[in-house]
Amino acid sequence: MSETVDLVFTNAHVLTMDENFTQYDPGAVAVRGDEIIAAGPDAEIQQNFDAPQLVDCQGKALLPGLINTHTHAPMTLLRGIADDLRLDVWLLGYLMPVEREFVSPEFVRLGTDLACIEMIRSGTTCFADMYYFEDEVAKAAEYAGLRAVVGQTVLRFPAPDAGSFEEALASAEQLIKKWKGHPLIIPSVAPHAPYTCTDTILRAVADLAIKYDVPLQIHLAETEFEVNASRDEHNMPVIPYVKKQGVLDAKTIAAHCVHLDDGEMNTLEHHGTGVAHNPSSNLKLASGIAPIAKMHEVGVHVGIGTDGPASNNDLDMFEEIRLAALLAKGSSGDPTAIPARTAIAMATCGGAKALHLDHLIGSIEAGKRADMILVDLGCLHNAPRFRRDDDAIYARLVYASKSTDVTDVMVNGNWLMQDRVVHLKNETELLQSADEFARRIDSFLIERERSVASKLVAIGGAAEQESFEVQAKIRVTNIDQLHEALKGSDIEVLHHRHYHEYDTYFSFDELDQGWLRYREDEYLDETEAVNSVRARLTLIGPVQESELPSQVLLSRSRYMAPASHSRRFYREYFKPTGELEIVKDRQRWRVLFRGTELYINLDTIEKPDLGTFLEVKSRTWSRVDAEHKATVASALLGALGGNPDDTVTLDYFQMIN
Amino acid sequence: MSETVDLVFTNAHVLTMDENFTQYDPGAVAVRGDEIIAAGPDAEIQQNFDAPQLVDCQGKALLPGLINTHTHAPMTLLRGIADDLRLDVWLLGYLMPVEREFVSPEFVRLGTDLACIEMIRSGTTCFADMYYFEDEVAKAAEYAGLRAVVGQTVLRFPAPDAGSFEEALASAEQLIKKWKGHPLIIPSVAPHAPYTCTDTILRAVADLAIKYDVPLQIHLAETEFEVNASRDEHNMPVIPYVKKQGVLDAKTIAAHCVHLDDGEMNTLEHHGTGVAHNPSSNLKLASGIAPIAKMHEVGVHVGIGTDGPASNNDLDMFEEIRLAALLAKGSSGDPTAIPARTAIAMATCGGAKALHLDHLIGSIEAGKRADMILVDLGCLHNAPRFRRDDDAIYARLVYASKSTDVTDVMVNGNWLMQDRVVHLKNETELLQSADEFARRIDSFLIERERSVASKLVAIGGAAEQESFEVQAKIRVTNIDQLHEALKGSDIEVLHHRHYHEYDTYFSFDELDQGWLRYREDEYLDETEAVNSVRARLTLIGPVQESELPSQVLLSRSRYMAPASHSRRFYREYFKPTGELEIVKDRQRWRVLFRGTELYINLDTIEKPDLGTFLEVKSRTWSRVDAEHKATVASALLGALGGNPDDTVTLDYFQMIN
Repeated sequence: MSETVDLVFTNAHVLTMDENFTQYDPGAVAVRGDEIIAAGPDAEIQQNFDAPQLVDCQGKALLPGLINTHTHAPMTLLRGIADDLRLDVWLLGYLMPVEREFVSPEFVRLGTDLACIEMIRSGTTCFADMYYFEDEVAKAAEYAGLRAVVGQTVLRFPAPDAGSFEEALASAEQLIKKWKGHPLIIPSVAPHAPYTCTDTILRAVADLAIKYDVPLQIHLAETEFEVNASRDEHNMPVIPYVKKQGVLDAKTIAAHCVHLDDGEMNTLEHHGTGVAHNPSSNLKLASGIAPIAKMHEVGVHVGIGTDGPASNNDLDMFEEIRLAALLAKGSSGDPTAIPARTAIAMATCGGAKALHLDHLIGSIEAGKRADMILVDLGCLHNAPRFRRDDDAIYARLVYASKSTDVTDVMVNGNWLMQDRVVHLKNETELLQSADEFARRIDSFLIERERSVASKLVAIGGAAEQESFEVQAKIRVTNIDQLHEALKGSDIEVLHHRHYHEYDTYFSFDELDQGWLRYREDEYLDETEAVNSVRARLTLIGPVQESELPSQVLLSRSRYMAPASHSRRFYREYFKPTGELEIVKDRQRWRVLFRGTELYINLDTIEKPDLGTFLEVKSRTWSRVDAEHKATVASALLGALGGNPDDTVTLDYFQMIN
Repeated sequence: MSETVDLVFTNAHVLTMDENFTQYDPGAVAVRGDEIIAAGPDAEIQQNFDAPQLVDCQGKALLPGLINTHTHAPMTLLRGIADDLRLDVWLLGYLMPVEREFVSPEFVRLGTDLACIEMIRSGTTCFADMYYFEDEVAKAAEYAGLRAVVGQTVLRFPAPDAGSFEEALASAEQLIKKWKGHPLIIPSVAPHAPYTCTDTILRAVADLAIKYDVPLQIHLAETEFEVNASRDEHNMPVIPYVKKQGVLDAKTIAAHCVHLDDGEMNTLEHHGTGVAHNPSSNLKLASGIAPIAKMHEVGVHVGIGTDGPASNNDLDMFEEIRLAALLAKGSSGDPTAIPARTAIAMATCGGAKALHLDHLIGSIEAGKRADMILVDLGCLHNAPRFRRDDDAIYARLVYASKSTDVTDVMVNGNWLMQDRVVHLKNETELLQSADEFARRIDSFLIERERSVASKLVAIGGAAEQESFEVQAKIRVTNIDQLHEALKGSDIEVLHHRHYHEYDTYFSFDELDQGWLRYREDEYLDETEAVNSVRARLTLIGPVQESELPSQVLLSRSRYMAPASHSRRFYREYFKPTGELEIVKDRQRWRVLFRGTELYINLDTIEKPDLGTFLEVKSRTWSRVDAEHKATVASALLGALGGNPDDTVTLDYFQMIN
């Protein structure tokens, strides 16, 4: 009478997460091979099916395995490398330099091996990954028995696994061809983000994804900065821009979507684009809180993700589910937003939709793959149990369960964990290898942090300038005399500017690090109003001086960069041990004197109150030219009424140091 | 040479959480009796101290026990009773009715017994509690070996353990006298909140707390609603108001403080008031996000709390610490806000300050009580370990550790948990008793939810009115004729009003539940502008009709209440299965006709478009009076030009149902 299957889960509280949120309590589920054959009331299933393996679930919750819709699994190896930093400091200052140095196939495999164990233990049965060397991620997931969407990263910069976009695209195609049709691995292409790609790249990856009918993963609208930049550059926010490049025509999975307007949500809904919501990461990096209640209302397929363990710092989906439910309430002022059932749906059936895999996974229904977990709701921290409201069990899972309450995990009909024991056996070795990587990375960073110059280079944008400078400076007591002299016929004023300069000099314990100057120039117009502002960063190496008649020739190594970040960024990144501030009023003239162009600065140092100084300066690249200019500069100083006895040879910051 | 102590923790990564955040790795800590004798480098301590008990910590983190600065421990028994509801529905609809029915000394003891085990397991060594029958909380904490600040609730309403404020105050004094000086229990008085107390109560509790030098616990500025109400009633926000009543002159612990202005923060700092930040609860009930980064900057002593398990839904301090750190970043846009070290400080030394107990606990320093926990940072979900940055260990604790990584807990020199085994032995019995309570509460709620009337009574404010009503209604076609008639000498108009009425009728599957009408009246002035608005709620029982000549006498049970909540509240609370809307324009005259006062309504039903009707109505309490009024009403209808053939006997909502 009864049909034979391989295994029957009995005596479970089955949360099917089907369209009607059907529950069976007590319920049972029959599994044959990799497939769910039936789910229903315990007695009915036990009557209809025979199986060599009967699993008594002891009243635990049996639900679809959790789906982590966005992560960078190999980054377990970078967990805790640098925290509580601003996004730019964290990313440009630490993550990217370390990745450039360390990411290899071995790194990716090891990191993913660790991630898989962590995910299994916390009830995740499927994860969507974006990183480099994704073939290694695929192999690690296959080895662990986890289902994974593996996305080969494509971007316009050289990456650890590709010298160019074309190479990355070729790798992605190779990955897709190799894994397509695999029972566990879904290959995918992953353009990193609109701002790290180009129109051409986005179109090419979309074409690739459509050609092979594979998912496309991309970071979209993660920060307000990104949205503003998109508006500036493309005259539209992020979603319309990527839509224009055809990105939404693929089976797209958009990570983050923190900053969307209503129209963009409708666009995502219309295209069936999946959204991966990463609440911990978005908070930790202060990107914001994604409007998932609104997206859910509009009908967007919202899943939940952990993001990489470097920005979370773990792969615990229970934390993310809980946070998704709580944040939706706290940020909207509506405590009924994203109720527990919806949050669990986002991590199961909704996540499956977001990954375009709902035909395979996400619910306990006949015909779907046997990806299921058992969660013990009988723990003291989850007692007592109220039964009045059918939705109470979702609330218990979301608000009181911990990932450590997961006891059993099955993927594709295979046991990955039973009674809290993960079947993979190499954990100790993996941990040792990870610590070895951490030691090497620590050494690399400690070495790098010894030098301000290498830290400056690490964040990019800085160019080294070995410069010689002629500089003659005298203390001025009679300014009127100077102004009179400037009117003299032998000095031709080519240009005049007036500004306020705010200099911050960062100093370091080791003197040979030099000084790092952060300068903001405020240009003043004729009415003394601020006309424009510019910020520059200069690393001033130790000075080598050689005296010329009445003047000083300075030579020093300088790294100059436009200060594209804030003073705060540089302070947090370089961690100076000392800091000096100088505020001065500067009148600057470019003059022609005896056929030579020179600069005259009339500086009144307002903070600290050092007095007024006259500088004659000229940049030069040769010793001979320097000697000539020194002579002319000396004569100019004289013509301006300067007295060589008042010569000052120190820089301002040296005067107060 | 070396001094003898009782116990030495060796080979630990000691986070002292002292003023300088001193760490010892490897470190050791010597304990004698209930006291920490010394903390320092492993070799030094081992050299200086001998002990019969040497605890090899195997490199785990040894830190001060976590301090939960705000909870309602007995509410473990209400965990998961009702979730994802609006604060009013949750509190007035579920929590308070259940508390009124079930809270007893037995309930409080059982709930606290459970809470203590949960807290021990998750590394909490001290908690601050506010509830009823606090003597039972004290006994449970003492039995479990936990340190606790136990606050007897005082409020202006009758409570489960006190019929009046005076009784509650006397209980509090009794509690204080009984427990003051106890090595683990710190008695305290807990005025619930400004809005549930009065000036007199607040002054009395402040006097009591000051007289006995004990902490005072209170909920302050939890919701924006509370702040606005304080401004309306007292012309000032919450903190100045309670300051005025002397509340801040005590050793006060203010829970929540979600909505504060800068001045209020300064006031809290000035008075040394402790703040208990409850991030999960504040999100879950959508109260908002407390500005703790700002408070911390100002110098307010901010601790972290779980709030009660009915609004969290657990007592896991690791979740709260993590959320405190993440929310501060996400809500401010600054990822450096509340870095991990600060978050751990808030849960240890800062929490101790918030509870006014920093002379005793909060750090691992000689002379303090031996309240310490060991946390295993070697788990896979916390690997690998970077050592470059001293603060990395705090980040590992905050962002990647789980409460289940706590392995050992000591309070006052006594082991409460070793190697994850809690020493209390009665867990199974406690869980059975808790399930028994849950079953009883479920039955109570299921019974109550069967009747709309009892649900209405449960939220208070509703009064039953058994009423008879004379009602005569006809369809009107000629309105001018009516207005003419009203000018007739036999009708004296006593009063006239014009308004717009918006009625929502909620219906229920079971017809004998009747209809629940939510009505908003907009009074219109002479210029047809809205003058004022009033909302009322009426539960209209099944109608019993008996015809009188030309009219209908209706008798029905009605519960009437001013609708102090929104239509949304009632919809979410009563969960009707159907809903009807009627919008009408109503002119209402109170008239004297043949010596009898009657009401005339001229109703134009705008939505749905039913036409215009004339009603003559009068409320009555006796059958004889009703028959008399029915005759007069009939005559009045005639005088107004009504034709008995146009009589309508249905209520408007019945016409469209």
